[in-house]
Amino acid sequence: MVLKCYIFPMSARILDGKSLAESIEKDLKQVVVSLSHKPKLVIVQVGNNIESDIYIGYKKRFAERVGVDCIHERYTEDEKEEKIIDDIVRYGNDTSVTGIMVQLPLPQNFNTRKILDTIPPAKDVDGLTSHSLTQLLYGGEAFLPAVAHAVFEILENYNISIFGKKVVVVGKSELVGKPIALKCMNMEATVSVCHSNTINLAQETQTADILIVGAGSLGLVGREGVRTGQVVIDIGTNPVSSGPVGRRVAGDVRFEEVLDIVSDITPVPGGVGPVTVACLFKNLLEGLS
Amino acid sequence: MVLKCYIFPMSARILDGKSLAESIEKDLKQVVVSLSHKPKLVIVQVGNNIESDIYIGYKKRFAERVGVDCIHERYTEDEKEEKIIDDIVRYGNDTSVTGIMVQLPLPQNFNTRKILDTIPPAKDVDGLTSHSLTQLLYGGEAFLPAVAHAVFEILENYNISIFGKKVVVVGKSELVGKPIALKCMNMEATVSVCHSNTINLAQETQTADILIVGAGSLGLVGREGVRTGQVVIDIGTNPVSSGPVGRRVAGDVRFEEVLDIVSDITPVPGGVGPVTVACLFKNLLEGLS
Repeated sequence: MVLKCYIFPMSARILDGKSLAESIEKDLKQVVVSLSHKPKLVIVQVGNNIESDIYIGYKKRFAERVGVDCIHERYTEDEKEEKIIDDIVRYGNDTSVTGIMVQLPLPQNFNTRKILDTIPPAKDVDGLTSHSLTQLLYGGEAFLPAVAHAVFEILENYNISIFGKKVVVVGKSELVGKPIALKCMNMEATVSVCHSNTINLAQETQTADILIVGAGSLGLVGREGVRTGQVVIDIGTNPVSSGPVGRRVAGDVRFEEVLDIVSDITPVPGGVGPVTVACLFKNLLEGLS
Repeated sequence: MVLKCYIFPMSARILDGKSLAESIEKDLKQVVVSLSHKPKLVIVQVGNNIESDIYIGYKKRFAERVGVDCIHERYTEDEKEEKIIDDIVRYGNDTSVTGIMVQLPLPQNFNTRKILDTIPPAKDVDGLTSHSLTQLLYGGEAFLPAVAHAVFEILENYNISIFGKKVVVVGKSELVGKPIALKCMNMEATVSVCHSNTINLAQETQTADILIVGAGSLGLVGREGVRTGQVVIDIGTNPVSSGPVGRRVAGDVRFEEVLDIVSDITPVPGGVGPVTVACLFKNLLEGLS
């Protein structure tokens, strides 16, 4: 008998963030319905950052869909810092307010750390106060920054274990790369952090079981940087030329190029992005149900 | 002509922490002499941890030698937390107090984070408040935990650059491994963090240009984990059997075994340890001269 062996190019499993976000949304709707009071999220915005407008738009629409009240406090760039801090203190003391988040970046003349640290830890649903970030070092309980939370939500949803795995994080920002790296350490992964000054990026990324790319650099990682069997999480949302269909984004990973090599990958759009918004509200409603 | 080639086993350069600490001590003495007021360090201790007694002893003797006043506030295990916090607040407001440190670990019934965060950032000479630790994520200015500070002090003293290097940190504790890893990222190193759940430790450590071992595990890394040309910093101070000469410590690296392979190495004792004490006082006197 002659056995014929056909080798087809394999294609990675797509880690579908859009579906996951919809599923979280459905669950959160149920939670809200069961509550005696409507949860309330305060979003603080300062200035006219267009990206901030887009992200806040996503959040407000999500809030409306799941039944969360949203207070959008928008200040001009010449607002006094004390006024913003006083308002956050007031919302912090207001028992009808469930969570408070400050949309970053703030204009340069504001003390971001001071403003963030005015949020009480229990209402810090974006996980950016010194208290929450310090818990990442200590492995303690605290809200995780929403992007980081989304990464772990996706991995958990697809039953991808982190314990003992080699995780390579590309990007070392304070809001994305570093919190993810610390959380992975807390989950007993061996963690490498690479960035723009990494000498041989491809050599490093190839060592990963789980490769998490959040450098904010369009198409940074391609075929040369991956190997068979890897799980790839692409956090990049880089704006690409707007066509007739409106604003388009693409990731840090050259998706098409690695699709037949790796085992699992998040697309952009439709990967980490939608789950990030959902995770903010997951934080908000945690402990309320 | 016949060229004869003799190959001698090379021996690593010893990164001499004892001499460096003495040199720092000399410099700090000069600083103190130049001041109009004697600097003052408050050391807070709770309970009867024998290791704590030893380390506080080192600090008090160093203080005496360089001319720093030392207030050793020692509380029993059944002291009220509020009393300790009130005292720290008082020292925080006292303009004659230059720095405040809490000797860790505290007994389990105390809220370590709450007590530490009572120290004003400007007096946090041990770099352990949430404020200081958060600056490690943001790459901002803050005091660095003394052990981490000592590692960078040694590297700088021996002109070993970190920028663009591959640093492997073994150990992921909140006081040693994680702060060192974050600081190395801020200094543009590619950083890997390994620990007891790392699958193939030797394979990881071999990728390092600079290998920093702070796992607290006697002789964890030996010949199998190093390669030619590496810089090895051993933070381990593991007690070994006390002989007639008194208490002895040994490192996390099997020193003799790697000495003819690596290019630079800190001994234990006489490496990171003495520099750690000196760095606490460097923090204390920073900005005073």
